[in-house]
Amino acid sequence: MTTPTTDADAGTRPRGRGRRRADEVRADVLAAVGRLVLDEGIAGLTFERVARIAGVSKTTLYKWWPSRGALALDGYFHAVERTLAFDATVDVRADLRHQLHSFAEVMATPGGRALLQLIGESQLDENLAVAYRALYSSGRRLLAHDRLTLAQQNGEIRAGVDVHVLVDQLWGAVYHRLLIPDEPVTPEFLDALVDNLFDGIAPKK
Amino acid sequence: MTTPTTDADAGTRPRGRGRRRADEVRADVLAAVGRLVLDEGIAGLTFERVARIAGVSKTTLYKWWPSRGALALDGYFHAVERTLAFDATVDVRADLRHQLHSFAEVMATPGGRALLQLIGESQLDENLAVAYRALYSSGRRLLAHDRLTLAQQNGEIRAGVDVHVLVDQLWGAVYHRLLIPDEPVTPEFLDALVDNLFDGIAPKK
Repeated sequence: MTTPTTDADAGTRPRGRGRRRADEVRADVLAAVGRLVLDEGIAGLTFERVARIAGVSKTTLYKWWPSRGALALDGYFHAVERTLAFDATVDVRADLRHQLHSFAEVMATPGGRALLQLIGESQLDENLAVAYRALYSSGRRLLAHDRLTLAQQNGEIRAGVDVHVLVDQLWGAVYHRLLIPDEPVTPEFLDALVDNLFDGIAPKK
Repeated sequence: MTTPTTDADAGTRPRGRGRRRADEVRADVLAAVGRLVLDEGIAGLTFERVARIAGVSKTTLYKWWPSRGALALDGYFHAVERTLAFDATVDVRADLRHQLHSFAEVMATPGGRALLQLIGESQLDENLAVAYRALYSSGRRLLAHDRLTLAQQNGEIRAGVDVHVLVDQLWGAVYHRLLIPDEPVTPEFLDALVDNLFDGIAPKK
């Protein structure tokens, strides 16, 4: 007589394929959460629903993600990774323009609006603020920083410029209009962000 | 026999000075709220307390400000107006640097931190979002816009630059670091915001 299984996942695991590796399970969950958040936002995101969709136990989910916000942020980061990827084969101004347009499009989806809500909630919830930085913003910042550093090494950005500051003057400026919508995010606005920074706004001598 | 007064303010109105004019009462309330918000934030801000401090009825307060958030924002706007004033007698780069340093200092007070919380709450509360823009951000934007437009008319900013965008690339960039604090707001950061924009970050030809 065999001992009964204690694996809470057993009932939903596809039969005949054996146990999925943890990293595969994790990737599957993130993909499912990412799709859900992009399409619907986070209002309908529950551990119960994700457990059902991804075929894992709620215990497993809680082990990896301490809160709904953390789960949403991790899923969202992976869901937008390809859309927001940089292209180091084109010149940096063209790459930034293109990426900023993609970014604005993503931010107009239910997922993007959910991200703004999480930024909002994180002003009042320190745990969520830590999760936001750890699972979303610091990773996005790093990707932008790497692209800008490459451009600086290529001579497309002047030596001595602190490229960290550019992240705030490009994407930060967009977040400003999204979070406090006195003015709209338009294609012209996105292009002007890049042009102002590269060309400078002082009169040409 | 005289009819009893029905003025709820009568008990607290200074005797012998007669009825205060509405605009004076309003200015007194805003001054009291502004001091309170700057010193303490909004956790302890209640209509009851403001009514007591400013010597007006709660009915009067509710007539002018529909919510605690609206009252806080209106008071805060007036409290920081002088600190955040521009100085059109100096060149625009020096003025912006100075103003951005003052802005960062104000944002580090309990009042500034309360403002970030209100931005946060306004992501989930449309009424508060409308009040935020009406009573705070649109007014601040207008002041910045006017200063930048003057600089453009003076030839300090190139013709053709949309100065609306600069508001997001200066103060918006600071809000970005305050709301999502992956990187700190330092004096060097504030100066770099101005320098990057005016000088441009492309290599000099």
